[in-house]
Amino acid sequence: MTKGTEAGIPKKAVGWAASDTSGVYAPFHFTRRANGEKDVTIKILFCGICHSDLHTAKNDWGFTTYPVVTGHEIVGEVTEVGGKVGKFAVGDKVGVGCLVGSCRSCESCKVDAENYCPKPIFTYNSPDVDGTRTQGGYSDIVVVDEHFVVRIPQGLPLDAAAPLLCAGITVYSPLKYFGLAEPGLHVGVVGLGGLGHVAVKFAKAFGAKVTVISTSPAKKQEAVDRLGADSFLVSRDPEQLKEATGSMDGIIDTVSAEHPLLPLLGLLKSHGKIIMVGAPEKPLQLPVFPLLAGRKTVAGSCIGGMKETQEMLDFAAKHGIKADIEVIPIDYVNTAMERLAKADVRYRFVIDIANTLKA
Amino acid sequence: MTKGTEAGIPKKAVGWAASDTSGVYAPFHFTRRANGEKDVTIKILFCGICHSDLHTAKNDWGFTTYPVVTGHEIVGEVTEVGGKVGKFAVGDKVGVGCLVGSCRSCESCKVDAENYCPKPIFTYNSPDVDGTRTQGGYSDIVVVDEHFVVRIPQGLPLDAAAPLLCAGITVYSPLKYFGLAEPGLHVGVVGLGGLGHVAVKFAKAFGAKVTVISTSPAKKQEAVDRLGADSFLVSRDPEQLKEATGSMDGIIDTVSAEHPLLPLLGLLKSHGKIIMVGAPEKPLQLPVFPLLAGRKTVAGSCIGGMKETQEMLDFAAKHGIKADIEVIPIDYVNTAMERLAKADVRYRFVIDIANTLKA
Repeated sequence: MTKGTEAGIPKKAVGWAASDTSGVYAPFHFTRRANGEKDVTIKILFCGICHSDLHTAKNDWGFTTYPVVTGHEIVGEVTEVGGKVGKFAVGDKVGVGCLVGSCRSCESCKVDAENYCPKPIFTYNSPDVDGTRTQGGYSDIVVVDEHFVVRIPQGLPLDAAAPLLCAGITVYSPLKYFGLAEPGLHVGVVGLGGLGHVAVKFAKAFGAKVTVISTSPAKKQEAVDRLGADSFLVSRDPEQLKEATGSMDGIIDTVSAEHPLLPLLGLLKSHGKIIMVGAPEKPLQLPVFPLLAGRKTVAGSCIGGMKETQEMLDFAAKHGIKADIEVIPIDYVNTAMERLAKADVRYRFVIDIANTLKA
Repeated sequence: MTKGTEAGIPKKAVGWAASDTSGVYAPFHFTRRANGEKDVTIKILFCGICHSDLHTAKNDWGFTTYPVVTGHEIVGEVTEVGGKVGKFAVGDKVGVGCLVGSCRSCESCKVDAENYCPKPIFTYNSPDVDGTRTQGGYSDIVVVDEHFVVRIPQGLPLDAAAPLLCAGITVYSPLKYFGLAEPGLHVGVVGLGGLGHVAVKFAKAFGAKVTVISTSPAKKQEAVDRLGADSFLVSRDPEQLKEATGSMDGIIDTVSAEHPLLPLLGLLKSHGKIIMVGAPEKPLQLPVFPLLAGRKTVAGSCIGGMKETQEMLDFAAKHGIKADIEVIPIDYVNTAMERLAKADVRYRFVIDIANTLKA
């Protein structure tokens, strides 16, 4: 039983979908499941464009089912709540990230790490509870179990909050879990894109000295002057690397291209940690001696649990952290994808769904 | 000022040294430094043979200075103590492992992790404080700063205790540091050699379910019946790997040969850790997706600090843990090295120095 007016009736939705490996998006009409008793229906206002959207649209990972509506950095307004919904009311400003379901009973789910559940339901391109495929946020509405919905705190701009739902939590979670959120640490951030630029902001807010590590010297001014990094290191410059040897407690590595780990391991203090949040397709070369000699760690991390995602948003609101965005209309999405493929965006496209997506 | 009778006079010593890359050992006369005020002189009773000895004797790592007396699993009896020695008295049974010095003031030294000091003095093949080269335990006596000497607890056989000074602490330390020493965990041990066989014993004593992972099915009976492992997994058998997918909290990987990490990552639960204590010369292939998907860790660990080494020995004595050894005379050392190169030992050679090394 829902408090809405159309209980039990699937909802008509409209979005932009990719229909083949060209990855070209076009308008697409589909249905969302009826609002269940624990569901909320959300009118989508903004949706960020994540690199995963591009990979999925083009089936780079080989498991795309077309047509696919991508988008998992969703911010919107609640328009309907099921009878057993406890956390939200109509009119609330809310967010949905990469996950819309999990088993809720495994070891990971029990410790609020739904993102590591072996049976996740992703926000798009995933089998949903009702047997249909999930479709993402490049669309007008979405129906989601309230457990996988977070509240956008007052003071956080709705458009610039959207990328925090994926990019933000992806870097916030490992900073916390791997002990890199303590004041006074020295944290490196490899790559200054959608993930990297918010990693700098969160690490600074945690009280770290932050060094941006990039192949591109041209990003120095941006990193230091605009994003507030303390220093900048060109990863291809042996002199700069040598000078910074053994200086960092941890490194958040956001790069998805193949790249060498050896220079990064050299930057770590003993007991230091490299946390991979980018996903290079091919294996990286892992030299073992440097790991042993300094008890160093290379680990991975993938988004975050729902409780931690809410905590991240609250932290962001408190510390004035938001993503740097370029707001675009939905009919710009194909151009945006071309620009994204060239890393031509500072730092996240956000689609203004409410004002530009027509039914 | 020392309490001994020959203060200030360098000590004549005899050992067996390798003199070139053939790695062949022969008798060698040299001097040890005079017993300083914080030093103890130890009459060596037993010395284990570690794989590092073989690599050093043959200059496999490229930094051997000949002639070199190897051996860093030393057990002996104190024969002289300096005036400022506080922990030991003449007659004490003591041990010396891989380290005989460190800076004592860096971040690692301050937290009793001298093994990660950037200025370590190794027990052999290292520049010593007095400018000479350190020489190891295939010799009659050694002079060591008391800080780098540990006490062999009552009840621990002196010969079988020797390998604990390197092999033992090498596996004990990461089990503790990486949170794998809690009862009820499932710990994998890759490789059943000098390190692996004591890893099984320590992990069992900590209360883990222990699975030995090996390329060699022939080792199953040995692992389970003799060493007390709970189960055995042939790492080249896809069926066995599949069955054990996602079952382990951590893996101690003792293998120094090149080997794939992907199957091991698959054995880990989410948040699981592979700790490398073997040292493959070439980089290993690190697939990143499996790291991300389960927030998994690949880390390295190298011996342990002095405080932890004492703790390890006390724990071993309490739980009846000792290395499985084959005691040999010093003039068997060249044959032992040939057998070690073929992994033909269960599981550690220990040289009976006191009874077989003649001046």
